[in-house]
Amino acid sequence: MTAIDVVIMAAGKGTRMKSRLPKVLHRLAGRALLDHVIDTAAGLNARHVVVVTGHGATEVEAACQGVARATAGFDIKFVRQEPQLGTGHAVQQAAPMLPDDGVVVVLSGDVPLTRAEALRALIEACGGDKLALLTINFTDPTGYGRIVRAGASVQAIVEHRDASEAQRAITEVYSGIMAVPARRLKGWLGRLDNKNVQGEYYLTDIVKLAVADGVPVVAHRIDDALQVAGVNSPVQLAELERALQLQQARALMEQGVRIADPARFDLRGTLVCAQDVEIDVNCVFEGRVSLGEGVKIGAHCVIANAVIAAGAVIHPFTHIEGGPHSAQDQVEVGAGARIGPFARLRPGAHLGAEVHIGNFVEVKNSTLAKGAKANHLAYLGDASVGERVNYGAGSITANYDGANKHRTVIEHDVHIGSNCVLVAPVTIGAGGTVGGGSTIIRDTPPGALSVARGRQVSIADWQRPAKKK
Amino acid sequence: MTAIDVVIMAAGKGTRMKSRLPKVLHRLAGRALLDHVIDTAAGLNARHVVVVTGHGATEVEAACQGVARATAGFDIKFVRQEPQLGTGHAVQQAAPMLPDDGVVVVLSGDVPLTRAEALRALIEACGGDKLALLTINFTDPTGYGRIVRAGASVQAIVEHRDASEAQRAITEVYSGIMAVPARRLKGWLGRLDNKNVQGEYYLTDIVKLAVADGVPVVAHRIDDALQVAGVNSPVQLAELERALQLQQARALMEQGVRIADPARFDLRGTLVCAQDVEIDVNCVFEGRVSLGEGVKIGAHCVIANAVIAAGAVIHPFTHIEGGPHSAQDQVEVGAGARIGPFARLRPGAHLGAEVHIGNFVEVKNSTLAKGAKANHLAYLGDASVGERVNYGAGSITANYDGANKHRTVIEHDVHIGSNCVLVAPVTIGAGGTVGGGSTIIRDTPPGALSVARGRQVSIADWQRPAKKK
Amino acid sequence: MTAIDVVIMAAGKGTRMKSRLPKVLHRLAGRALLDHVIDTAAGLNARHVVVVTGHGATEVEAACQGVARATAGFDIKFVRQEPQLGTGHAVQQAAPMLPDDGVVVVLSGDVPLTRAEALRALIEACGGDKLALLTINFTDPTGYGRIVRAGASVQAIVEHRDASEAQRAITEVYSGIMAVPARRLKGWLGRLDNKNVQGEYYLTDIVKLAVADGVPVVAHRIDDALQVAGVNSPVQLAELERALQLQQARALMEQGVRIADPARFDLRGTLVCAQDVEIDVNCVFEGRVSLGEGVKIGAHCVIANAVIAAGAVIHPFTHIEGGPHSAQDQVEVGAGARIGPFARLRPGAHLGAEVHIGNFVEVKNSTLAKGAKANHLAYLGDASVGERVNYGAGSITANYDGANKHRTVIEHDVHIGSNCVLVAPVTIGAGGTVGGGSTIIRDTPPGALSVARGRQVSIADWQRPAKKK
Repeated sequence: MTAIDVVIMAAGKGTRMKSRLPKVLHRLAGRALLDHVIDTAAGLNARHVVVVTGHGATEVEAACQGVARATAGFDIKFVRQEPQLGTGHAVQQAAPMLPDDGVVVVLSGDVPLTRAEALRALIEACGGDKLALLTINFTDPTGYGRIVRAGASVQAIVEHRDASEAQRAITEVYSGIMAVPARRLKGWLGRLDNKNVQGEYYLTDIVKLAVADGVPVVAHRIDDALQVAGVNSPVQLAELERALQLQQARALMEQGVRIADPARFDLRGTLVCAQDVEIDVNCVFEGRVSLGEGVKIGAHCVIANAVIAAGAVIHPFTHIEGGPHSAQDQVEVGAGARIGPFARLRPGAHLGAEVHIGNFVEVKNSTLAKGAKANHLAYLGDASVGERVNYGAGSITANYDGANKHRTVIEHDVHIGSNCVLVAPVTIGAGGTVGGGSTIIRDTPPGALSVARGRQVSIADWQRPAKKK
Repeated sequence: MTAIDVVIMAAGKGTRMKSRLPKVLHRLAGRALLDHVIDTAAGLNARHVVVVTGHGATEVEAACQGVARATAGFDIKFVRQEPQLGTGHAVQQAAPMLPDDGVVVVLSGDVPLTRAEALRALIEACGGDKLALLTINFTDPTGYGRIVRAGASVQAIVEHRDASEAQRAITEVYSGIMAVPARRLKGWLGRLDNKNVQGEYYLTDIVKLAVADGVPVVAHRIDDALQVAGVNSPVQLAELERALQLQQARALMEQGVRIADPARFDLRGTLVCAQDVEIDVNCVFEGRVSLGEGVKIGAHCVIANAVIAAGAVIHPFTHIEGGPHSAQDQVEVGAGARIGPFARLRPGAHLGAEVHIGNFVEVKNSTLAKGAKANHLAYLGDASVGERVNYGAGSITANYDGANKHRTVIEHDVHIGSNCVLVAPVTIGAGGTVGGGSTIIRDTPPGALSVARGRQVSIADWQRPAKKK
Repeated sequence: MTAIDVVIMAAGKGTRMKSRLPKVLHRLAGRALLDHVIDTAAGLNARHVVVVTGHGATEVEAACQGVARATAGFDIKFVRQEPQLGTGHAVQQAAPMLPDDGVVVVLSGDVPLTRAEALRALIEACGGDKLALLTINFTDPTGYGRIVRAGASVQAIVEHRDASEAQRAITEVYSGIMAVPARRLKGWLGRLDNKNVQGEYYLTDIVKLAVADGVPVVAHRIDDALQVAGVNSPVQLAELERALQLQQARALMEQGVRIADPARFDLRGTLVCAQDVEIDVNCVFEGRVSLGEGVKIGAHCVIANAVIAAGAVIHPFTHIEGGPHSAQDQVEVGAGARIGPFARLRPGAHLGAEVHIGNFVEVKNSTLAKGAKANHLAYLGDASVGERVNYGAGSITANYDGANKHRTVIEHDVHIGSNCVLVAPVTIGAGGTVGGGSTIIRDTPPGALSVARGRQVSIADWQRPAKKK
């Protein structure tokens, strides 16, 4: 089979984005536009991927290399196009990196949602020896280059401004994506000129060169406009974002996930769901999230990088924010656990089965064993909490001495009263009790009641302060 | 008047739901699909309701009986269809429970939004002696059984696959709902056969039997596709959910409720609103909620089982979660009260007029009298709080000793300082003051200043810990 | 140039609003409908604005005067229309206040979204001597008054009920808005009669008087239905709200703001954004908000009256609620600050560069200098916090003694432990440390470790309470 090499044009400035960020680094569903296109190339098992950079080249290349590193065995090369003299000029820069024996697929870094299957059909249409254009029908083709056909084969791409009345009636337009034998492409690239109003080298001019050379030009037409939609402005970015989000929601629903409102669902990463998962309105998922069987996610939750086991219930207004880098960093919620409302789980919160985390509770870098509970207004940071521990309302692990972080160990079956401070490093012995309002600065013995509080006194007939003028 | 008996087909598996839950138990606006259909039957003053169960029969019957108990004087019977050999076979199972003198209305347990008025018109079309079909016009009828008419009367239902080109142009289709005299129905049911590709008994085959018998077949056509829409997949469930939610929002707005965004409003239960209620974006209401005159609900609130009196203001991010079972359990918010943002009211929170509950405050099973305030980071559980009490930031009622719950009584005009712990059972005498940071373990006298704290000392030139390597 | 005088009809009851509030005071994007119309008049540099009030006149006039005061040099007069005898009658009441030499523009107080440019074109069409009508094409004009033209000039407005079949086919309808020379208008107003079914004086009747007098009647037709849409019901109010919100979102995106979902964005006031601002789903902005370069606003935030400097990150579920009245009252967030999730900033929270405010933290009327941090479950009220201060989890400024508010001063480089209470007025000296669980009631020396806590004791083999029956 002929090898596939991909050229991705990513040199444009994107003036209409009105942003300092290079256009192809703007994010769709949480990832750079260019990352989506590189993924598509990966889906084609491309041999080489050549990214043509220009505006913001350093930033774009650095961002890509990050992605490339994460994608094992994937080869990305960069060429710079400076100045930017048109699409033909862009591909000319890439030409030296394209072996003669391959088929070249030309993609745009700002067209993020092309599917590999459409490109595979395009490559098949190319057949290793033809020039194949990806085309689409538009109800209103105004402004787009029309595909002038003679039967199955394409005769020309005619730009809107150059089109006759009859040609303007054509609704099939060029998408900007093509597949072409490398040897042919290189020949035609050498013959492009810039004798036009803009003074640019147009890649589309190779169509007339192909026709002149008697090389067949074919089209593979798709119907889904989303696959060829480019991002040129924040308005278009938002439109694509919503279209992609609806697509993702639909795909999950088709797997059986029950989403209360697909128009109010956001996934920026991957979400793996077991059977009978329910997701209420306005939830946002980021990074890698996995939800076990029967998990229920309440309204208005934001969840990133978490593994939530079967039967867990996440109440509304819960913010789970695992780290993206490692299993240690991610958040884990055990089977049958109940979290929220108004709970926050931060990186390294590892909760066992049937753990309860209630309102206004923050957990960070802490392990809670089976059945432990922290139901009200509390902070657990850098702590190891045993089974069945009841961690009182308003209690705080003082894990930070202003310079270093220390661990708190709360052994099995401990009962911590309300508004306690556990000054780390400290260990609360198994089965012990800490009286409400105590600040614990030393380890406590197992089974003991430990308190550290003032004696209660009352001053009779106390005169409260009066309102000052 | 002829008695109405209803058969509800609820035996299907619902494979495309990809769920362990039987299809008719999936929830729409917070209630099982089947509950909606039973409600519709109730709206017809049905004499008997026969639910034909099959897949998950035990679970379905148990769920229904719960509903039936809650609906006084309503008679629901079950028959099992095992195995499931088609819609005709389903109704055959129900036949023995249908008295000869009634009109039978056949409904589907997965078609939740049929209105009683449409069914009443259908029953009227039946007239006690005709076979009456509920039909609907579809722009795209592909896949549905076409209604072949001769003038007003129906000649046949022709399945899509069996339809001629001319018949396929018919846009009137059968909805799956019919009304038919019981005596006639039983006769026809006995004559159904399963000589078809699927080997099933089709209820629609009674149309040709009726025509053969010279019994008039009539159609009552409606225009609202929602009324006959079935739920076969999570995608369809979500579509119906949104349609129903918009309908509910519209109905409330027509009563004068001002809803900031009807597309971001969810009601799963009943919401009764007095005049000049305003509901901001993204609110979710569950169970029974009642809002008094001029109540304002801020953005992003979740409110269940609550009675909120006139003039109360609920700020954004408030979570109110009354219990569904009793007046004791529900949440009550008094006239002119101000709640939130980030407040949580749990079952049995009964707040008097002009009570203020502020951010990061949780109230559970507690009574607050007029003008009491808990504005910041606090927990009130199992407490009775008097008029004008000021409950300080960070203060906690320690209501749980690890085994039992105890009550805290805070009498009128008490001022509780910040970060106090009130260890229940305990009473703070009227007009008393509790100094900030105190843990109160015994009752305090009225009018007294009570404190329990350590003496303040300072160690000069203290060396803070240094950052460890 | 001819002076422009504006008449705003604002006397209607708005029965279908089903509200105690007069219709023109209902709010769209946070402001009264009438305010929007007065703004439009201001955009025309109107000489006089005469508001015709009736139902709820006192309330409407009071509300307007508030707005008028806020708009320097703007002259608003009121006339009362009691009883309400039609649109012609309404303008008759205003006539004595309209100088003869001007052009009068007639607007409706319940049509909020007319743009000044459309009115300027209307005034130009009027040319100081013609009767000019603002018209619009409706796909379905049922119920509206049709514009019967002879070439460019208008011959009549024919009400739907009076229209011939041919006239009903006309899709151009009258919007309710006109521009007319004052002298002419007054003459015609004096000749109106109420010989019609409703017994009302119709302003549209001046068209036939103009035609009879040989005064040209012209039309300026616009295409944007939103500009002439009136509010008669909560449903229409919600429709206009969403349309306006989408318009506002689009305008911001065209400036370069990246809005994750334009359908879930609400702005009730003004939002000024520098470059590269990102706004996640479901955010609500109120009053005056300004966002510096690169600011990121997380999902589900509510932000009012705030200035947020470059590079600040506002995490999800943050509630910022500055006061509307002064710079002192507003909220300020410094460059590079990190706020939330679940943070609340109240009036007078002024945060310096790189300040961190974390979860379940409330800040009110307090200044935090550069690099100060309050990351967990804390309250800072009426406090001045120095640079690099670390304010511990669960700590509270006890700023209220039950009668008066006092200030807390925390000098540079102080470290406050967890669950402390700082009883104001109090000063924590620079570089000092307060031990966890301390209640500080007197000033502490710089550089010292200050503690106020009980001694830790343990009672061995303590028997916990047992569950009572």
